Amino acid sequence: MAESVSASHLVIADEDIFEAHAGGKLSVELKSPLDTQRALSIAYTPGVAKVSRAIAADATLAKRYTWANRLVAVVSDGTAVLGLGDIGPSASLPVMEGKSALFKTFAGLDSIPIVLDTKDPDEIVETLIRLRPTFGAVNLEDISAPRCFEIERRVVEALDCPVMHDDQHGTAIVVLAALLGASKVVGREMSSLRVVVSGAGAAGVACANILMASGVSDVTVLDSKGIVHTEREDLNSFKAELAQRTNPLKRTGGLAEALDGADVFLGVSAGVVPEDIIATMAPDCIVFALSNPDPEIHPDVAHKYAAVVATGRSDFPNQINNVLAFPGVFRGALDAGARRITERMKVAAAEAIHGVILDDLEAEHIVPSPLDPRVCPAVAEAVGAAVEEED
Amino acid sequence: MAESVSASHLVIADEDIFEAHAGGKLSVELKSPLDTQRALSIAYTPGVAKVSRAIAADATLAKRYTWANRLVAVVSDGTAVLGLGDIGPSASLPVMEGKSALFKTFAGLDSIPIVLDTKDPDEIVETLIRLRPTFGAVNLEDISAPRCFEIERRVVEALDCPVMHDDQHGTAIVVLAALLGASKVVGREMSSLRVVVSGAGAAGVACANILMASGVSDVTVLDSKGIVHTEREDLNSFKAELAQRTNPLKRTGGLAEALDGADVFLGVSAGVVPEDIIATMAPDCIVFALSNPDPEIHPDVAHKYAAVVATGRSDFPNQINNVLAFPGVFRGALDAGARRITERMKVAAAEAIHGVILDDLEAEHIVPSPLDPRVCPAVAEAVGAAVEEED
Repeated sequence: MAESVSASHLVIADEDIFEAHAGGKLSVELKSPLDTQRALSIAYTPGVAKVSRAIAADATLAKRYTWANRLVAVVSDGTAVLGLGDIGPSASLPVMEGKSALFKTFAGLDSIPIVLDTKDPDEIVETLIRLRPTFGAVNLEDISAPRCFEIERRVVEALDCPVMHDDQHGTAIVVLAALLGASKVVGREMSSLRVVVSGAGAAGVACANILMASGVSDVTVLDSKGIVHTEREDLNSFKAELAQRTNPLKRTGGLAEALDGADVFLGVSAGVVPEDIIATMAPDCIVFALSNPDPEIHPDVAHKYAAVVATGRSDFPNQINNVLAFPGVFRGALDAGARRITERMKVAAAEAIHGVILDDLEAEHIVPSPLDPRVCPAVAEAVGAAVEEED
Repeated sequence: MAESVSASHLVIADEDIFEAHAGGKLSVELKSPLDTQRALSIAYTPGVAKVSRAIAADATLAKRYTWANRLVAVVSDGTAVLGLGDIGPSASLPVMEGKSALFKTFAGLDSIPIVLDTKDPDEIVETLIRLRPTFGAVNLEDISAPRCFEIERRVVEALDCPVMHDDQHGTAIVVLAALLGASKVVGREMSSLRVVVSGAGAAGVACANILMASGVSDVTVLDSKGIVHTEREDLNSFKAELAQRTNPLKRTGGLAEALDGADVFLGVSAGVVPEDIIATMAPDCIVFALSNPDPEIHPDVAHKYAAVVATGRSDFPNQINNVLAFPGVFRGALDAGARRITERMKVAAAEAIHGVILDDLEAEHIVPSPLDPRVCPAVAEAVGAAVEEED
């Protein structure tokens, strides 16, 4: 127990972490106590029969008289947990409990972890279809790529409720918000930026997509073998499709070739970027080194070349953290009765996060703090407005 | 909204019932607030990674550092909800929320409703196997007979945690407790009682089983066609098997033939028993008319012939209510780390319920009140002791 984690200049002892997790972090409580015969007769038999009969006669009443309509299921198979990889559903549960805790804290939404003892996409999709009346929205979490793309697509198609794989879209929304801030700080239009994304997993693909949807025309993605381009024959179908849509100048090679003269480095893999390659980027460049706990390049080193630096860590400025996005996205979608979380809603969420910080924007403050209480309501409102525009 | 329910001499307006159900009856809360960067760093990244890594290295730690180990899933397919029949999973959810509320109130256990959009036994069993890491025990609820027998048997076999279909065994435990009390009131040995069970569904079969396991040798069961006996050719496999084990004197016919001279009537169907048939029972007979909301015979009429009368209703004496059993049964099983809920544990639960009331036993007080706070701890302790005896 001698190890410890460092966060926000705090050193936290292992004992404190394990003690805080004893028995889990969540509790199911009653909205009203069942301490009298009258309360029991209302909430259980015979009173509850009236409510069940009413829902049986009019299915839309389930939205009003159960918790399911606003309940977020945080669903994982434990195959890509934090930076720990495929550690299985039980070991992923503390993360899912934490996610449910964040939903309550930031969005006021009830949420339950659902961890699945199967990695088979067919079985995961089928299980969620069978569980459908249990919840009102699905936050897919820590599911490995490329399986996560197919699973999310199929769950979205199958269920008539908001579904989002947060490792993809939560990250992408906050990255877009941060890049909106950083580009203003350096005085550049988004459309003029040449962006390099290191990592072609869940986050990398979603970030490339949302940046292109927001007007960035030159996005190049790298996987562990180098630049993703159309001449490569080792690409799975998701990367092959990505190669078609990205890398307009048909660059080939590795990180050195990609970053030479680039405006933005976005690291969403566990890789390392040497200082001499960062040194070849364009003047006033932007570095988002989001790998956790070890950024692709140390922020102090990146700052020798970059005008703006962000990481995923709370102990450096500009923390890019999904908690800025997912609570407000689900809250806004559920408040508005949305059946889908669309690209437009995701972009609206990013713009809302950016909007919160607009008046205080500076190089070391391109996104709000994860604890900023203004963020979730702003995101929820923007997402709700985007739903209405869709309809 | 002019209707109302009557319970315990209370008249409760529909408005009050629906208002109490608005938005559902449950809420997921945090055990500790996430209001500081330090709290966030402990409960979520980076701190939570330590806990996940520890569980990945030693799976037994999931019991200590997640909520799953003590979480009861209240699982239904909505096929036999209260007396309302097959109203579907969404309409069953208010009942399941109520059940989860009772688990918290009486046993201090966290519990989540899981309502399934499938009636297929294979799919129900398979889904629970896939959900296994999510919870620590399964309360099957409101699943129709005879499917419930197969589903429960297969879920018990498949999962290494406590599983109980409450409509069967919760009812059976409380009926046994009540009959222990009633037989003492009338000064009879359990083994000398001739018992007639009206209803061969989930509750009827389980009651017959637990009574026979507790020494009652003459149990006759009736379904809607009459006495279940070995000469009948219209019985499903479960009833055929029941016919082998019950009705030792090989009675045939209907309710009139069964009740003539019987000591105990146990009604667990929605049928009606005419007064002139109750009049043929033995002197000092016992009538448990448990159909809800309308007992098989009105208690005031039954009292003209019976020494002891019980119903399922809170507005008459001797309410036979499952809430006397299931909270303590699951609490005791989970506290003791039991992997099964055995017959011995169920009988121990019944004896513990009976034990609570032993000193105050009288004809109008054969079971404790559902709100009696002594019951759950007594049941949990007895169930835990029975687990240890098994091991």
